[in-house]
Order: sequence, then structure tokens, then C-alpha cells
Amino acid sequence: MPSLRAQIFRVAANGPDDISGVEALFASGLSPKDVVAVLGKTEGNGCVNDFSRGYATRSFETLFQKYGVEGVSLVMSGGTEGALSPHWTVFARAVVQAPTERALAIGVARTPSLPAEHLGRREQVLLVAEGVREAMRDAGIDDPGDVHFVQIKCPLLTLNRIAGLEAEGKILATRDTLRSMGLSRGASALGAAVALGEISAETINDTDICSRYELFSRCASTSAGVELTDHEIIVLGMSDKWSGPLAIDHAVMRDAIDTTAIREARGRLPANGHLAAVLAKAEPDPSGKVRGKRHTMLDDSDISGTRHARAFVGGVLAGIFGVTDLFVSGGAEHQGPPGGGPVAIIVEKEH
Amino acid sequence: MPSLRAQIFRVAANGPDDISGVEALFASGLSPKDVVAVLGKTEGNGCVNDFSRGYATRSFETLFQKYGVEGVSLVMSGGTEGALSPHWTVFARAVVQAPTERALAIGVARTPSLPAEHLGRREQVLLVAEGVREAMRDAGIDDPGDVHFVQIKCPLLTLNRIAGLEAEGKILATRDTLRSMGLSRGASALGAAVALGEISAETINDTDICSRYELFSRCASTSAGVELTDHEIIVLGMSDKWSGPLAIDHAVMRDAIDTTAIREARGRLPANGHLAAVLAKAEPDPSGKVRGKRHTMLDDSDISGTRHARAFVGGVLAGIFGVTDLFVSGGAEHQGPPGGGPVAIIVEKEH
Amino acid sequence: MPSLRAQIFRVAANGPDDISGVEALFASGLSPKDVVAVLGKTEGNGCVNDFSRGYATRSFETLFQKYGVEGVSLVMSGGTEGALSPHWTVFARAVVQAPTERALAIGVARTPSLPAEHLGRREQVLLVAEGVREAMRDAGIDDPGDVHFVQIKCPLLTLNRIAGLEAEGKILATRDTLRSMGLSRGASALGAAVALGEISAETINDTDICSRYELFSRCASTSAGVELTDHEIIVLGMSDKWSGPLAIDHAVMRDAIDTTAIREARGRLPANGHLAAVLAKAEPDPSGKVRGKRHTMLDDSDISGTRHARAFVGGVLAGIFGVTDLFVSGGAEHQGPPGGGPVAIIVEKEH
Amino acid sequence: MPSLRAQIFRVAANGPDDISGVEALFASGLSPKDVVAVLGKTEGNGCVNDFSRGYATRSFETLFQKYGVEGVSLVMSGGTEGALSPHWTVFARAVVQAPTERALAIGVARTPSLPAEHLGRREQVLLVAEGVREAMRDAGIDDPGDVHFVQIKCPLLTLNRIAGLEAEGKILATRDTLRSMGLSRGASALGAAVALGEISAETINDTDICSRYELFSRCASTSAGVELTDHEIIVLGMSDKWSGPLAIDHAVMRDAIDTTAIREARGRLPANGHLAAVLAKAEPDPSGKVRGKRHTMLDDSDISGTRHARAFVGGVLAGIFGVTDLFVSGGAEHQGPPGGGPVAIIVEKEH
Repeated sequence: MPSLRAQIFRVAANGPDDISGVEALFASGLSPKDVVAVLGKTEGNGCVNDFSRGYATRSFETLFQKYGVEGVSLVMSGGTEGALSPHWTVFARAVVQAPTERALAIGVARTPSLPAEHLGRREQVLLVAEGVREAMRDAGIDDPGDVHFVQIKCPLLTLNRIAGLEAEGKILATRDTLRSMGLSRGASALGAAVALGEISAETINDTDICSRYELFSRCASTSAGVELTDHEIIVLGMSDKWSGPLAIDHAVMRDAIDTTAIREARGRLPANGHLAAVLAKAEPDPSGKVRGKRHTMLDDSDISGTRHARAFVGGVLAGIFGVTDLFVSGGAEHQGPPGGGPVAIIVEKEH
Repeated sequence: MPSLRAQIFRVAANGPDDISGVEALFASGLSPKDVVAVLGKTEGNGCVNDFSRGYATRSFETLFQKYGVEGVSLVMSGGTEGALSPHWTVFARAVVQAPTERALAIGVARTPSLPAEHLGRREQVLLVAEGVREAMRDAGIDDPGDVHFVQIKCPLLTLNRIAGLEAEGKILATRDTLRSMGLSRGASALGAAVALGEISAETINDTDICSRYELFSRCASTSAGVELTDHEIIVLGMSDKWSGPLAIDHAVMRDAIDTTAIREARGRLPANGHLAAVLAKAEPDPSGKVRGKRHTMLDDSDISGTRHARAFVGGVLAGIFGVTDLFVSGGAEHQGPPGGGPVAIIVEKEH
Repeated sequence: MPSLRAQIFRVAANGPDDISGVEALFASGLSPKDVVAVLGKTEGNGCVNDFSRGYATRSFETLFQKYGVEGVSLVMSGGTEGALSPHWTVFARAVVQAPTERALAIGVARTPSLPAEHLGRREQVLLVAEGVREAMRDAGIDDPGDVHFVQIKCPLLTLNRIAGLEAEGKILATRDTLRSMGLSRGASALGAAVALGEISAETINDTDICSRYELFSRCASTSAGVELTDHEIIVLGMSDKWSGPLAIDHAVMRDAIDTTAIREARGRLPANGHLAAVLAKAEPDPSGKVRGKRHTMLDDSDISGTRHARAFVGGVLAGIFGVTDLFVSGGAEHQGPPGGGPVAIIVEKEH
Repeated sequence: MPSLRAQIFRVAANGPDDISGVEALFASGLSPKDVVAVLGKTEGNGCVNDFSRGYATRSFETLFQKYGVEGVSLVMSGGTEGALSPHWTVFARAVVQAPTERALAIGVARTPSLPAEHLGRREQVLLVAEGVREAMRDAGIDDPGDVHFVQIKCPLLTLNRIAGLEAEGKILATRDTLRSMGLSRGASALGAAVALGEISAETINDTDICSRYELFSRCASTSAGVELTDHEIIVLGMSDKWSGPLAIDHAVMRDAIDTTAIREARGRLPANGHLAAVLAKAEPDPSGKVRGKRHTMLDDSDISGTRHARAFVGGVLAGIFGVTDLFVSGGAEHQGPPGGGPVAIIVEKEH
């Protein structure tokens, strides 16, 4: 009796172009065409001029081209501050001859192309919500409560796109390219929240996006990329239609040191499992304080606040899990509560 | 029946010159002349051009002058990376009418002035060792096993001092001022190790200093300052001759994520106590790896490795203790094992 | 026959607290009470968390207190990027027994306290314009064309002030403290422009401030400080009622490499004079280009664009003038054209 | 009558992977196989973790592979601080039917592979000297006085190479990979100096390399790369055997603001020529001063001194030449005097 089975590999990277570990996986049997996504932590600054992401993306594009494989979602997140370790997390899925059981399910979807004048607006929220639902169907997940992580790659506005659209008389949500990244991430996160029933679509207006941060998804992780005009969506959750030893759950950290939430989520997973992956979001608390004590992340003109946050939350998580190759990414508009963020934990049960 | 009693106050700082919280302590009854030391975490970069330290020192000098108090040890450590919170830790001691019991003891000492040609050499190790023994006597601690933290402020070489001494024909351990800071910190830490019986004085040669890092103290925390030519030494430990609710123990982290050592040390302290202070050292693992996984702290030309390390280890500790006003300082020559470091924990028993 | 005479001293600083060079001036005859202003280039990052400015200000306050002198304008500009050299420029004036002649004139004024709800609005523009006119009268300058540099220190909004005012029902121009600094600098520069007849007061609306950058003063240099609620204004220009060897003129750089404008301004000053001071403003060209070629100052998440701009324009100016102790400051809202800025040149005629 | 003719193109780069401008050159007639070298200024930090260089190199390798062209020297220098503009300088040469005349000549050579135990030692100096002589012959330059710029790409030691060699019992000049880069650059620069008769080979000992900085070449610009074990050498100079409108000369800046040297060099070139390229080296003055005034480049723990130096010297040069797409690179061991550096100027005579 066939079932779908997910596989996850954490592979060390010796630099943004070091794909040798993934090539070794292929050499030892993993089929490149089974790969659904690669989430990379690369060692740039994670901000505007982080070329480690593009360099890594280029390296993987070349690799998959070599195998004639298309459509793998490449999500590169810059920033391995503190002792965080550069690495690739490879997600694969394949049909196996095994009975179905409750296990990690991976679903993917791409939305139609987003008209640029919809970026950062209610229309983007709705488009993404539909895409997340489609990815859930692809994953065989019916209950939104079984979804634990939604990774979304979303478009942004470039100066060229803006100029072209304004020439056509279009009114855009912003003319600022950096701002367009935030708006697109925020709208995408709210789209996930709508699909998962965390927020009602009716209640969201254009002006809420990147403004009413009390609205958020507990599972969304979004990043904006210049190379697409649609959305690449990956849903991770539990489904009875899959098989295999992997299981996922998630926590929502209320602040940067909310270890209780993480321990509780870990406690809901098999105790004897070993860690397959941790996927987390971190940001400087916009209040300027953590549990009443001032932090200086937002006042530091030498180091971006996102770098501070990744280093620190990376330490919090590494202290709990005992490993440093964790996927901690920054920028968390509507992705968990302000100053906190979602943390997905995947474990592999021992046999 | 009189006994000595220690007091510890963690006071928020709104900037390097914000001493208002300490003034408030004085207003509410703490006698300025009982203050033994102020350990400050200031919000500079903790490296060469960190003026937040000097600015804070100047502010406290002016404050204590106002009260006619001299000789308070002012130890300013720059760097509140991640969510670490700028604050002052005020150590005070006074005679109270209470029976002696086993409690936190604070002892201080100053060594004679160090001839500059002895800096970074065996002579400095021996001089500091004698000073630490004196501070132990001042604290009423007989057993080196009762010492849990030794904070030492040590001298450095300036261009002027070097020129003067070379004119006299003196041969110095280094002509590089930055290097002189490391050598002085390293020799001072080894001095503590000798005093505490961790290392035999006979085995230490000039060439071991800042070279044989397998030699280290489990309790030392040292910093170099331009304003002194001797050493200011503060010893924290347990003594039967004091009284009060404070107790101290310490851990030695073997690497940046060694939470086991910290939990064990915390476990040796009263379970119902609340946290009074955490004093820790952090540094990037010089091997370039943490538990076999590469880190990028030492390859980052944009952010000093010490800043990465403080942010990350700050996260590890904040995750354990649930607070962010922790004294985490960088630069750890011979202070704990390479890539790890000492962590002192002080708790106040509930009544 | 008495006349007023200006004196200017460029004094090297070995650190933010190194006032020894100014003390040496006092020892050699300069009267502390003749000092009108100290403009400092300190070695911080010139951005939010630059404590070198406050530390320097504190050091000079203590110095002048010692001499019982009050009211000296202390303008500290952080950032000595590239080979720019930390230094103080001391401006003094005194009555001398000499016939009047056309020479450098220094005038000062303080405005009334600015109601915070006027900050960043037309009312601030008008208040500053009146203050600049008063400083011109103090300098004995009638013709606005004789003014070559207007340094203005202006207030900003703090979180406390904002909370207090909003509790009173006041509507502020911004609730963002950083934004309030820009608005205050911009409105102050426009105030100078109005006083100098560069712009008509009637044409300026609230919405122009920090928005219509084609409106600017060719002479203004403004900085916001937390320590005042009014404005400290220093006017430098030429007047027939003074005496002495100093003369001033100014250029307006149209872009970061506009050396022609500077050479022309220098050409209008006595050829045989030696340089007394250069006071300049620099900013990254907001177009992202200089003469059609892309720059990366605004895309660099590791180094603030203002630091890039000071380093680069510092190089341009040092190449022309052959010295590195130049007062180049950043942040140039309405102070010269976008991407360019005013440059005042003061020379001392030889005898 | 055939002659060789050099061509130089300065091409704007919109990012490390933006080779569209060079593709446009090919589309408009430049033959890819005529390209000798591409010198790139990429927008990374120019230090250890600058991935913009590798990313650019990869992009050009892919481009030239597409055209079946091998052996193009790709020299990527990171760091476009200040208003310096990211760009590629393409050097090409081809036979044309025109009489020979005195004109810019380009010669290239590769040395044999350098045994790693010779790196940073006298043997490397001699190997490079022979390579430079070969490149001079390739350029048709007999008189060392006609050489104005020598660009050398040299090898470095990696941890793997070091381990392998030490296992064979080899004694290396250093075990520190970063240090090996400096030694290799320094030895290569001294090799150029020997070939050009600036220094006698007999006088150079192993211990002089990266130590006796009073020994230097007035024309050398060297960079270390992980991708080669030999040396790629490009010599630019004047030769009577070429033709065309290009001419080159060079200056040696004695310090960071030595504009006199540059103006003199420019004066030796045709007055009516327009600028084709400027190739310069910059470094923070190791004395800590420029013309007696302190700089802070070497004390800044937030920004690498090389970044400060490029920004500042970039400003000096841009002020003189009126353009910002200048090749200013850092790290200048034995390449010009300490704190100064060589500047090559290439102009194209008008017809």
C-alpha cells in the first residue's frame, strides 16, 4: 500500500556556494527530483546588500539544472550570527510502499502572478490564502490545526516595475522598494493566517498591513524575493495520509526569551525522537524592551537589529536544543506576536 | 553579635551616564561608603573605540566624589548585544547585628604597582596571585574551593609608557598596546588560577601566557584599563563569617551552549532563591566550530567576534534565567576553556 | 578705537574627553569667557548610539564650569571616518583696540523655547528665522549676502515629552523621536533660508519640511540635541565693523565631487591666507547616483550612509585643502541641494 | 602593417552578478577572445567574508565559458565605499592594421605553480620577478621605466593545504591562512620590484617580507586568491610596438592626501585625453597619523580600516578626476610607501 513519505536533511555549508554536501546526498541515493525545497542559512548580513543569498541560489539553480530538475523552492535566509551554523535544510518527498500513518506532510503550491498594484494590499492576502489552502490540499492536510509551518516566498517591487506601472496610471501601495518587501511579507503572513482560520478575511483592510501587528499568524514565515512575481508556498504539518518517522509541532514565542512555549511544543512531540530541524523567526522587540528591561538592538547604528535578534534568539534556541544549525530568520511582520515569533520543531522518532 | 553582610543591586541604566538608579538607591538608604564595586554593562561595542565605558566611569567618579567616597572599584564592560540590557550591578557590604552564617562574602584588594616590564610575564602572575590571596583574606574565605568569582582590573601598556621604558633600556613583553591588554588579562587570570590552586605557580613560564590556553582559571574574569598601573581585585565566594540571604556558586561552560554546566551550578544553590546576579565570560570558539558545526564569528569583518559571542551566549543564559540584565563580558584569555567560560550565579534565598 | 575681533583655533583631540589642548590655549592667554562656541568632531559613529558626543559635551561643561563661564555653545558632531581627524574648533571674540575693517564676524543668539507642538512645522521655521536675524544683528551683519555659515542647534522630541504633550491633547508633527530630529533640523535650516532671503516665508508649509528638498539654505548647518528646548544659533559672516586677519566665504557643492564650487569659493578669499577652518555638510546622494554612476552608500546594511558620505567627502575636501582636521558633518535636510551641501572656508591673511 | 592595440572599457555593474554591460560590449563587436583581463570593483566589504568577489568571478566564468574563452584573468576587488561605483574594467588587445607607435601595452604571464613552502619567502619573490619579466616581454616592453602598473593575483594557504604539507614534513612561512594572504601579496609586490629594478634581489631576505615596508614597488598591485596555486600577472606600460590612442603613467602617493603626485602624473599624459581608467591602492597610514594629525581608522572596531581608507582615498581621487568608477583597492603590503600607494592613470587621446 503506497503512502507519501517526507525526508529532511540538514547539510553543512562551507560557504554560500558549497553544495558539495547536497551532491553527496544525491550520490548516496537521494533522488534530486524528490527534492521539494531547500531552505538555506547563508552567512551574509541578511539585509539589503547580502549577496550570499543570491550566490547560494545561483549555485543550487546550476546544480538542479544539471539533473534536469525544475521547480525546487529555494529559500535563502541570510545571517548566521553568533554561533549559528551555515547549512542547507533539504526537504524531499516520495511515494513509498508502506501503510499510511500520522506523519510529517509537505505540501507545495504556487499562486498566480500577483498584479503589482495588489502588492501589500487585501488582494494579496486573499491570493496567498487561496495558495496556502492549495498547498494544504497538496499535503493532504484537512484541518488547519494540523499545519505547523507555512513558508512563503513572495514578490517585491523594483524601481523598474514601479516606473512601468506608474506609466500605466497604476497606484501602488508604496514606491519604496524596501518598504514593498515588508508589505509583501506582511500581506503574505496575513494570507496564511486567513487560510488557517487564525483571522477572518473580512476583518483585514489595506491599512492593517504592516500596521496592526496584533494580527498575526502563529505558523507563517515569509520572505520577499526579486526573482518571482507570484508566491511559492510550502506547508508543513501532520497528516494521516503519509508515513514515516517524522513529526512536527510548533511554538509561538511571546518574546525573545520565551523558552516555556518551546519546551511545551517539544513536549508534545515524541520524547525519544532526535531533532530533524528547527525553523524560527526572530526580531527585536519593537517596544524596546524584553520583560521590562531595555534592549539596545534598535538604537545600534553599527549592527542591524535583525542581526542582533538572530544572534540572541539563536542562542536561546541553541541552549535548548543543543545544536547550532538552526534556521533562524529575521523580519517578522505579522509572523507571531511583536518581539516574539513562531518556532517549528521537527523530530524523527527512533525505531 | 556583628557580622558582615553583602548586598547586591541590579540597576537599569538608560545610557552610559545614567546613574539615576544608583542615586535612588542612596536616597532610599544605601550608604555610598558601603559600596565596594560597580560592575557595569554599557552599550558600546566593547572593543577599542568603546567610549561608553569611559563615559560611565566618569559619571560614577563624579557621583562618588559628591559623597566623598573613594576607592570604589568601577568595572565597565562594553557590549549589550542582542537583548542584553544595560545595567549596573552594585556590590555593597556592611557590618550588621546578626549571627554569622554561611553566606556570600565579598573581598577586595589592590596589588602594588606593576613594573611595566613585568606585564604579561610570570612576575605579573605572581603579583596577582598574592593580591587574590589578600582579597580572600579580606573576604574571610580560607578555602579556595569557596571562591566562585574573581574580577580583576589590570593595567596595560600605552605608547607613552612604552617609549619611556624603552628609553630606560627596558625590554617589554610587547610593544603593541592592544596585545598588552590581552597579555595583562591573561597573566591576571593565571594569577587567580595560582591563588586558587588550579595551577601550580612553578609550571607557568612567560611563554605560556596567551599561548597555552589549556591552562585556565575556572573563576577568573579580567579586564584591562588604562587608568591604573596596579590591580583592583574583587573576590566573591562563600564564607561562614558573613550573614544574610545571598549565596553564590559557579559553572564552567565547556562551549557556548553548555547549559548542563549552568543548570548543575544553579542546582547547587537554594531552589527557592531568586536571581541576584549572573556574571559570565563569552568568546568565539577559536576552533571555528561549536560541537562540530562551523560558526562564522571569526570570519565576519563587519562585526567583531566578541560582539557575536556576547549576543549568542547572552541568549543562552537569558533562556535559562529568564532575565536579560546579565553581566556577559567578552575576551576570555585563560578564563575558562577555549570557546567556553566561567559563569557565576548569585541567588537570594527567600525568607 | 575699539573693534570686535574673532579668533579661531583648531585643536587636536586625543579622545572625546581630551580637552588638554583647549586648557593649553587658556594657559597661554585665551580668556575662557571670550569663547563663543566649540565645534567638535568626535570619533563616534555620528548616529543614534554615538556616546562620543555626550562624553565630549560633558568634558567641556566641566571645563567651563571650572572657569565660571556659561553659555558657550557646544556643538559636537560625531564621525571622523577615513582620515578625518578628531579635533575641536574654538571660536572666540573680544574687543580690541584697532580700527574696524572688513573681517570675520561671529554672532550668536538663542530663541525662546519652542512649544513642542511647533517642532517640525512652519512655526519653528519662523522662530528660527527671527533667531538668525538676531544673531546677524549680534554679529553686526546687515546684508544677508555677507552671511556664510549658520550653525543651529535645535531641540528634538523625546518619548517623555511626547507622552506629556499628548496627555494634554497636543497633536505633534511626529511621534517618532528619530524622525523628530530630522524635522527639527530641516525646519531650522529653512528658518535660516528665510532669514537670509533665500526662500520666502510665505511659500513654506508644514508639508514642505523634510519633503520638498529643492528648498534649501546655502549656508545652514543644523543639528538636534536632547539637552535644549530652544535654539542656539551661531552666524559666521563678513562685517565692516570688526577687525583682524580672518575672512570667510562659502561654496555650495552640487554633488559629492563638486570641487569646482569649492575652488571658486577659495578663490574669492585672500590667496596668501592660510586655512583657519573648513565647515562642511555631506550626505549620500538620495538619487543613488553621483554624476550618473551608482553608489552603494544607501544599500549598505553594515555601514550607515552618513559614515560613507563623511569619509568620501572628507577625502574630496582633504585633497583640496591638504589637511584632515576638517569639520565635515552629516545629515543635511534642506542644507544645500540633495547629495551636495554647503562648505564654509575661513582663512587667515598673512601679515 | 600590423600592430597590437589595447582597448579599455569601464562598464557599470548593477550587482556582483550583473554582467549585462559586458555582454552588450560583445553584442556591439568586442570579441570575447580578445579580452585579457577583467578588473572588478564589487560592492562587498573587501575583507574576509566578502562573497561579492566569488559571486562576480562565478558570473564571469560562466559568461566566458559560453563563448569558449579560457584564461581571462579575473581580478575582483571588494569595496565600493563612499561614492565609489561598482564597475568592471575590461582590458582587451588585438592585432590591427596600423603602424606602430608609442601606446599603452598590455602583457600577461602565468608563473609555474608555487610550492606552498615557498609562499611568503624569497623563492616566491624570485618566481614572481621572472613572471613579471615574462609579462613585460609579452607586452613588448624592454625598459622597466616604461612599466606603470603590475597587477598580480597570487596564491594563499588553506587549512587543507597546510595540513597536507605539514604531514609531509614541510615547514611553512605561516600556519595562519589570513597571514598567508598578506605574505603572498607582499612577496609578489617585492617580486615586481625586483623585476622592475626598484630593489635588488640580493638584498631581500625571508624576514623582510611584510616587515621592512621601506622596501616597496612603485607600480605593484597584488591580491591573493584561493583558486590558484601559481601567479596571474598583468603588466601595463608604454611600448613603441603598439598603436592606438591609449597612454598610461603612474604616481606614487606618499600619503592619503598626496594630490601633488597625482597631478604631476596626470600632467605627463596628453592634456586633451579623456580618462580611461584609474587604478589605485589605499591603506590606513600605519603611523596612525596623516601629516601629523591623528586618524581613527585603525582604532575603529566597527568598520575595517581598509574600508575607511578606500572611502577616503576614493574621495581624494574622485575630487581630482571628477568620476567615481575608480579601481581603488586596499591592502598594500610593499605596494607603495606605508600609508600611501601607487596610482596608475590611463587616458585616451582625442582624435
